Amino acid sequence: MAIRAVVWGENIHDRENAVVREIYPKGMHGAIADALNADPAIEATTATLDQPEHGLPVDRLANTDVLTWWGHRAHGEVKDEIVERVAERVWQGMGLLVLHSGHFSKIFRKLMGTPCALKWREAGEKERVWVINPGHPIAQGLDPSFVVPQTEMYGEPFVVPEPMETVFISWYDGGEVFRSGLTFQRGAGRIFYFSPGHEVYPIYHDRNVRQVLTNAVKWAANPVPAWTTVTEAPNVPIDKAPEPLTEKGPKLHAAGEAGLR
Amino acid sequence: MAIRAVVWGENIHDRENAVVREIYPKGMHGAIADALNADPAIEATTATLDQPEHGLPVDRLANTDVLTWWGHRAHGEVKDEIVERVAERVWQGMGLLVLHSGHFSKIFRKLMGTPCALKWREAGEKERVWVINPGHPIAQGLDPSFVVPQTEMYGEPFVVPEPMETVFISWYDGGEVFRSGLTFQRGAGRIFYFSPGHEVYPIYHDRNVRQVLTNAVKWAANPVPAWTTVTEAPNVPIDKAPEPLTEKGPKLHAAGEAGLR
Amino acid sequence: MAIRAVVWGENIHDRENAVVREIYPKGMHGAIADALNADPAIEATTATLDQPEHGLPVDRLANTDVLTWWGHRAHGEVKDEIVERVAERVWQGMGLLVLHSGHFSKIFRKLMGTPCALKWREAGEKERVWVINPGHPIAQGLDPSFVVPQTEMYGEPFVVPEPMETVFISWYDGGEVFRSGLTFQRGAGRIFYFSPGHEVYPIYHDRNVRQVLTNAVKWAANPVPAWTTVTEAPNVPIDKAPEPLTEKGPKLHAAGEAGLR
Amino acid sequence: MAIRAVVWGENIHDRENAVVREIYPKGMHGAIADALNADPAIEATTATLDQPEHGLPVDRLANTDVLTWWGHRAHGEVKDEIVERVAERVWQGMGLLVLHSGHFSKIFRKLMGTPCALKWREAGEKERVWVINPGHPIAQGLDPSFVVPQTEMYGEPFVVPEPMETVFISWYDGGEVFRSGLTFQRGAGRIFYFSPGHEVYPIYHDRNVRQVLTNAVKWAANPVPAWTTVTEAPNVPIDKAPEPLTEKGPKLHAAGEAGLR
Repeated sequence: MAIRAVVWGENIHDRENAVVREIYPKGMHGAIADALNADPAIEATTATLDQPEHGLPVDRLANTDVLTWWGHRAHGEVKDEIVERVAERVWQGMGLLVLHSGHFSKIFRKLMGTPCALKWREAGEKERVWVINPGHPIAQGLDPSFVVPQTEMYGEPFVVPEPMETVFISWYDGGEVFRSGLTFQRGAGRIFYFSPGHEVYPIYHDRNVRQVLTNAVKWAANPVPAWTTVTEAPNVPIDKAPEPLTEKGPKLHAAGEAGLR
Repeated sequence: MAIRAVVWGENIHDRENAVVREIYPKGMHGAIADALNADPAIEATTATLDQPEHGLPVDRLANTDVLTWWGHRAHGEVKDEIVERVAERVWQGMGLLVLHSGHFSKIFRKLMGTPCALKWREAGEKERVWVINPGHPIAQGLDPSFVVPQTEMYGEPFVVPEPMETVFISWYDGGEVFRSGLTFQRGAGRIFYFSPGHEVYPIYHDRNVRQVLTNAVKWAANPVPAWTTVTEAPNVPIDKAPEPLTEKGPKLHAAGEAGLR
Repeated sequence: MAIRAVVWGENIHDRENAVVREIYPKGMHGAIADALNADPAIEATTATLDQPEHGLPVDRLANTDVLTWWGHRAHGEVKDEIVERVAERVWQGMGLLVLHSGHFSKIFRKLMGTPCALKWREAGEKERVWVINPGHPIAQGLDPSFVVPQTEMYGEPFVVPEPMETVFISWYDGGEVFRSGLTFQRGAGRIFYFSPGHEVYPIYHDRNVRQVLTNAVKWAANPVPAWTTVTEAPNVPIDKAPEPLTEKGPKLHAAGEAGLR
Repeated sequence: MAIRAVVWGENIHDRENAVVREIYPKGMHGAIADALNADPAIEATTATLDQPEHGLPVDRLANTDVLTWWGHRAHGEVKDEIVERVAERVWQGMGLLVLHSGHFSKIFRKLMGTPCALKWREAGEKERVWVINPGHPIAQGLDPSFVVPQTEMYGEPFVVPEPMETVFISWYDGGEVFRSGLTFQRGAGRIFYFSPGHEVYPIYHDRNVRQVLTNAVKWAANPVPAWTTVTEAPNVPIDKAPEPLTEKGPKLHAAGEAGLR
């Protein structure tokens, strides 16, 4: 069965900015979905901010293997309820690709537990993306490095937790560096952050970038069935303890009482 | 200069539950602060939920090196504003010890980015805490294992990110195991979670537990001055780039414009 | 194409010890290979210490996706040359499962960079293996915990580097705990250590243990082509630098000279 | 009590190469020791390859808190016995700073379990070292980045395990990047790799580099007493089990027998 990917796009600059509109007539989400659908192992559809429930109703998310997230101008307009919903699906095992300015999205900051801040400069400068682990599935098929001819500079310090793996580090014309491809795990969910993707340049039409996104969707798809109880804190009563047990001493909770939260 | 520790306590069961009151006449926070103050390298004071700003005004936090957090019944009553404030201080470099039922506190869940769920049983059973890394400063002075004679069982899976270090793992009479001592880093802040500490048993009077808390406060105190800009995302204008740079191509942002959040 | 697994066995107690021989008439390696071959996605063969080159000639290893390693009495008899060869294949991307007493094998100690020591007791006691991350592919299809009715106790501290992921932790009758399932990465190679497997008990006939091994082989198989240059330290001459560069200052090396090792 | 640092130097190019001799009349080890001794919290002495036991007899190492290691041309001449000795002290808790070409030293490769390979170019180009975690003790007192005006380029992929922390990443004139400051832990020992330090440039006279080395020695010094049993695999006999235990089933080992290695 194909990997079910949903490409989420803020879809604002895509419509309102003439430069972006010309580069991405179908929206950036459209371009990304096309890139993913070029691989027969992936079936990608799109969702946008302006749709009901931002295009992410419960049953759709339940049938999503990997979600990609691009947002920039309207992070604050994403409803907290939807952010919670997405987070819970990640914890259950849905993969998540966070792209470029998505570093400041509610969902990424929630999952990281850090400010996710960085430095930036919009000068159309050159970015060279270096592969740090050529044996990583996300780097498959790439050269030792590839160039993004025009990019927005994102510079360190990138305030995220130490990643599970550093896949890419970028070099910039202007003298900065950035950990441009990082993996994380939260519950059963695999997360990949990838920084190239500024909207006024045709980055999601780049062959290497498309390869990275396709690889990353495959990497992030967890074959294990959803861990649906990931947020539960079940009581294990004394008579259900794995080993025979006798109660001792005082108690706070009456028998059968739910735990405190 | 002594390490400035603030011991935060929810202070509800400490006052309202007769069992807890008898064990901890000065409150659990009082007992913990006494344990820490027994070491001349630490100066511990206390703060509680019922105080204005939960006892954590901005200037006090700014002068706190390590905060310890015990809450259980009233996680929901902790104001989001104070949680944000504490998180920012952790990112800046303040150490944080999260104790027992604090696993479900707003601050811990925020910093972890996961549900922080676990299994539990209140049977007064025996817990044996094993030292996983005897060379870790938090384990200094302990035997290979120590016993908490009566404990609340906390069982795996404990839904937190893979820790920086696994310091302790607990064995329970009833057959479960738990990663009872874990370290994490968020920004410049060091975090230690330690699970023993159920309120109806005299756990914070235990010699070994007090040793762990004292060690952990010392470990979590970051000697580096506060990283006060940790949440900022500064623009680096072209003329301030480390290397000489010429602007190329289209732009989204006008010169001097603030970044989007 | 099926995953090509090679099951390496020391094959000494399997032949010389009557208890082991009766439990494993085809050797422990035979039982493990049978378990893996029950899954159509895997094609497992065996190799043993007594074969030429320990059954691991260069071309066979080059065509192996995942190697499993069980040894106990004769770690010292494994030739260093073969250990180097296996290590290099792991760095290139071959998966490695290290089983039970293999913790003291030359290959595991080489890849870990630590003593890999632990505590032990042979009392036929009960081991309860807890799943720490139910969303991990290696845990797929398992209950929250499973019991190995008779086991050799392996106790902490297990002196390995902090793992990439803690998949299993074991509880023992006698009061100890052990991180019984850990993942690591070295170069492009994924490594899984799994502790159950003492030879005088029928552990590799256990349904859950066989499930773990099958899952782990699938997890460890890296789809990326071998990183054949993983041990090379190439010079990048000035005229091949990604950016135009002018030589400055004194040099140690003449042009074209190989680097020092 | 001051931190007892030993600065190990290969001391070959320091004597034989005119350029190096002029920059480092006291040897590179002499310059590094001077840098460390400028901080009253550190007492640094030196040791070199040509001394008996390479200047690292058992009792000296036993009284060393942190060892720094610089070698380039003669890695192969370092006796395996001394490498084992140093490794064991690291596991016991001695800190280790591995400098520049020390990436290919026997001791670093042994502790990493990987090839430790990288790319290189000797063009005297500029290196800009970026601080990735400004809150890390090793980065204390540094600007967001600092420049090494002439350096040997070390380029990714650097084949080491994923580090505990990425402290520095370097940008080079020629277009490459490198993780120039990484931390690791092996047993009780903290390890820091720092790449600047090519012998034909005056890098160890640089103010920022000296600050890094001084910070790193303080960070690597473990206050916990040596874990002297770190390589032992003790049997825990049945009558010494933490919980009462009855022997069941067959055994491989006779009572009191040593474990197999």
